[in-house]
Order: sequence, then structure tokens, then C-alpha cells
Amino acid sequence: MRPGPAAAVEIVDVAARDGLQSDPTAVSTAGKVELIARLVDAGVRRLEAASFVNPKRVPQMADAEAVMAALPRSDDVTYIGLVMNRRGLDRALAAGVDEINAVVVCSDTFCERNQGTTTAGAVSLWEELAEGARAGGISAGVTLSAAFGCPYEGHVPVERLAAVAAEVVRSNPAEIAIADSIGVAVPQDVTERVAAVREAVGDGVRLRAHFHNTRNTGYANALAAVDAGVEVLDASLGGIGGCPFAPNATGNIATEDLVYLLDRTGVDTGVSLEALCESVLWLEEILDHPVPGYLSKAGGFPGGTAA
Amino acid sequence: MRPGPAAAVEIVDVAARDGLQSDPTAVSTAGKVELIARLVDAGVRRLEAASFVNPKRVPQMADAEAVMAALPRSDDVTYIGLVMNRRGLDRALAAGVDEINAVVVCSDTFCERNQGTTTAGAVSLWEELAEGARAGGISAGVTLSAAFGCPYEGHVPVERLAAVAAEVVRSNPAEIAIADSIGVAVPQDVTERVAAVREAVGDGVRLRAHFHNTRNTGYANALAAVDAGVEVLDASLGGIGGCPFAPNATGNIATEDLVYLLDRTGVDTGVSLEALCESVLWLEEILDHPVPGYLSKAGGFPGGTAA
Repeated sequence: MRPGPAAAVEIVDVAARDGLQSDPTAVSTAGKVELIARLVDAGVRRLEAASFVNPKRVPQMADAEAVMAALPRSDDVTYIGLVMNRRGLDRALAAGVDEINAVVVCSDTFCERNQGTTTAGAVSLWEELAEGARAGGISAGVTLSAAFGCPYEGHVPVERLAAVAAEVVRSNPAEIAIADSIGVAVPQDVTERVAAVREAVGDGVRLRAHFHNTRNTGYANALAAVDAGVEVLDASLGGIGGCPFAPNATGNIATEDLVYLLDRTGVDTGVSLEALCESVLWLEEILDHPVPGYLSKAGGFPGGTAA
Repeated sequence: MRPGPAAAVEIVDVAARDGLQSDPTAVSTAGKVELIARLVDAGVRRLEAASFVNPKRVPQMADAEAVMAALPRSDDVTYIGLVMNRRGLDRALAAGVDEINAVVVCSDTFCERNQGTTTAGAVSLWEELAEGARAGGISAGVTLSAAFGCPYEGHVPVERLAAVAAEVVRSNPAEIAIADSIGVAVPQDVTERVAAVREAVGDGVRLRAHFHNTRNTGYANALAAVDAGVEVLDASLGGIGGCPFAPNATGNIATEDLVYLLDRTGVDTGVSLEALCESVLWLEEILDHPVPGYLSKAGGFPGGTAA
């Protein structure tokens, strides 16, 4: 149906980590496990399940081990753990994650504030974590954060992004994710930067993209990423997470809204829109506040006669 | 900067009509006039100012004449009045609108419920209104509503849309607008349907598009419309209007969010993002509720070093 490059895209749901980490409501371990189980039942096959960071800094993720221990396991479902240092990697390996994700912020100022080191320091840390993950028998991916703009430095040159990509690829990531962490990108940026990263890293590595809908460009960006050859898109059920400025303003693009867009575009995700929307209603009860995603409110294409 | 077809797009702000008509808050005549004056000050040069419909059916628009009488007038600003019948046209002419807009709904069921006639009946009415407007010395445009899907019939065949377009163009509209009245379209639909309408009506008529962000596809659709050659886009300050299902869910795409997207894409609108965002804060006070647009909360591109 679609003339463009991709007939299928993999969705990584990040609600249980990126979503819940910045939500005002503290969700129990059982709630997190049910959230992930519901997403798996809806057809999601890869999820950010937990973050192995300092529980004093991020108390919402202190139960990472307990979440991992209680998750339904299946050969075709991959659970990703976010790690920021060697201690986190050791915890993630012990907890049985299938894959780790590390972060390199593309601007020094944001990297210092987020990780206490420069971009170059974060690249070195990524190398150590990638090696450690492989030694532990699991795969490692890396996210290039602030790849489209920095809250402190503003413009992030595309050459800078490409240079960072060229460095991280030396440690053979299973995947490189390009993240618009603060939601400033427009589709034209996505087209340009995906091409620049692809040129910098060669054809051997899978590209993933992570968009926030902070300025209502997230869904257009996701589609531009698919058109540019990105094979994996992050999204969070309900669009929860990453909203520093207003209680009901959006962070991540919502998984259900992304699935509607891709379904109608003829790009297969393997995920059931109906099952997602049911789980959004459950999520709103658990969180005790509305979520930014629209599909659970608006419903799918009317009349059942969708092309 | 942009390789695509358009370097500039005209924005028609519809907040004062489409926006306020379905808002739970009744806004005074003075409030409507200030809203429009603020938009003109921000650089908007064409606005849907009022609706000349039965005040018993739409009490929010009962003061259309008073609004028109109090508006700041200028040679380079165009005020559009929505009319549904001959009586409305006479009122609009007497009130001094610069242009009328009529509506033809592309599906019979929705057309019957909205206008009490079939699509064919609405086309006949449009012919009468177009002739009457011209006799009165003003221009007339027509909106093809439910051009992407119908809440009752579901799928609306592209051939049906093209056939309706071919009929309305006979009365020489100044412009034909293609409206996704219920927010179901995706960019692929926009590309296909703009091309079909263009083919049906020839090159002599300007095309306009009207999107709702009901399923978070509105901004991607707007960009697809620009890429497909549409020269005019509707939007409403704050994204108010047309939200039947949830108080803070969105109706129209927000003017300020659209301007951010187009600015960053290198498409000129002549409208100041900063002035719009200031007026959104004023609008939220007047309406006494938050609006769906994000830019007034998130702010523009950080750091002042935007490319």
C-alpha cells in the first residue's frame, strides 16, 4: 500500500521507564509489571523495562530488580534496561535484562548536567559498558541524546551529531538511537540528521529514533524517520513521560497514536490499537490523571470501513 | 532553505469562529474583537471572524454583526464569514465581511445531519451563495467537509471527493478548502486527496486545507498539504475548537504550533510566534481553561541560536 521505504517498523515502548520515571504518581512494582504485561499482550515485542540508576537519584526506578524478576518472559520479547555506569550494568546483568541501553548526550553542557561528564567522557563510558554487556552475553545499544537541540546550548550542529555517531559505532552497538530529548525537531531535521548519522556509521547498524511531542512535531518526525530508513521507533503508552512544564502536556509520542498513524499509512507494527487503547484507560486509573495520547479518547477510524 | 515546493504559506486563523463556537466558555463581543485584533497584530492577515447562522442553533455566534462592526479594518486584512443559507449571506453582506465561506459535506449522512440536505443539495446551495456573494461584491470560497472520512459512513472514497470538487469549481470559488473535519487523515491521504482535487478542479483555483488534531496527525497532515501544493492552512490560536470528547483534547491544529513547525521548516507565514504565544496566555485567562496548543508552554527553540 505504501510507496515509501518501510513496510514494517518495530515499536519499543518506553512507558515503564521513560514514562513512569517523570510521572508525578509513584507506581507499584505490581503496577509496572502489569503495564509491561499488557503491552506484550497488545503485541509489543521490545520494551524499556527498567532503569538501573542510583535509587537515591531516581526513586521511581528503585525496584528495577523486582520488576525484572516478576515479568512474563518469552523468547520473542526483549526487555531493555537503561544503565549509566558499571554498577548499573552489573545490576542489569544480574537482573536478567536482554539488552542494555546507554546514553551519550551530544552537547557537553547537557551531558555534564545529566551525567556529570562531557560528551567525550560519555563516549568512553559507552565503550566500557558495551564491552561489559557483550562479556555478560547480552547486546548493547546506545542513544544519542539531544541530537536535534540542547536546552542549554540551543543549536547542535549536525556535524557534531555525525562525529559522535562515528565514535560510538566503533564499539559495535546493536543499534544507535537518535533522540530529540527536548522535542524541538521538525521533519526536515529528521531527514537531514538520519542521513548524516547513516553516512557516519555505515550500513551495518540498525537505526532507532526517539521523539518527544513537546511542540507537537513528534508524530510528523516519526513518519519522517520511517521515510528516512529508521527501523525502530520509541513511544510510550498514553504518551506519558518527560513533561517538565505542565501536568497534561506531552512527553514521549504515544504508542497508540503512533500505531494509528502507522496503521493508516500501511506500515505494519504488529501491535493492536484496540488493545493499547484499553490499556490506556487502565493506565489513567493507575496514574489518577489523564494522559496526553488522543486515540483512547477519539477512537480509531470510524465505521469499520477503513481502507 | 527548504527544498520542497512552498517558501510561504498563508494561515487563516479560525479561533474566533470554529474555535469559540464549540468552547464551553461563552466569550463576550469585546473578547472576540480583542482575540481577532491580537491575531492581526501578530501578523495574521486572514481570519474566520464570525458565523452568520441561526442564533437559536448556535448562540455563541449570535453577536456576529456586533463583532464585525467593532473589528479593526485594514486593506490588507480579510475577514471571512461562514454562511449556510441565503439569510446568512444577506446578514454577512450587511455586516461587511470581505469574503464568505460555504460548506459542502462530502458524505450524505453527515451532510443531512449538519445541514439538513444531501451533498447534492449543498452543492446547489453553494452555487446560489457564490452567485449572491459576487452580486454583493465580495468573494466566496467553499469548504469540502468530511473530505477524509465521515463519522457516520466511515470511508469517503477519493473519487467521491474529486467528484464533489469538480461540481463546486463550476461556480468559480476564490478558493476550495479540503477539511478533515473529524481528524482521521494521515499524510499519505493528504498527498493523495490534494492531488485528486487538483486534478478535478484544474490549476486556476487556490487550495486550502483544514485539519483537526483529534488523533495527533494534524501537524503532519499540514506539512504534507504544503508539500502537495496547498497554499493556505487553517489553524486556531491555542488549538481551540471542535473537541467533542474531552475538555482538554484538541480540535483544530494550533496556530502557534503550526507557526513553529513552518518557521523551523523554512516556510514563511509572516506571523510572529512570540506574539501568538503571549496571546495564548491571554486566551487561557479569558476561557478559564488550558488550551491544547503546546508552544506557549514549551517555548520556542532554545538558546536563540536557531538555524
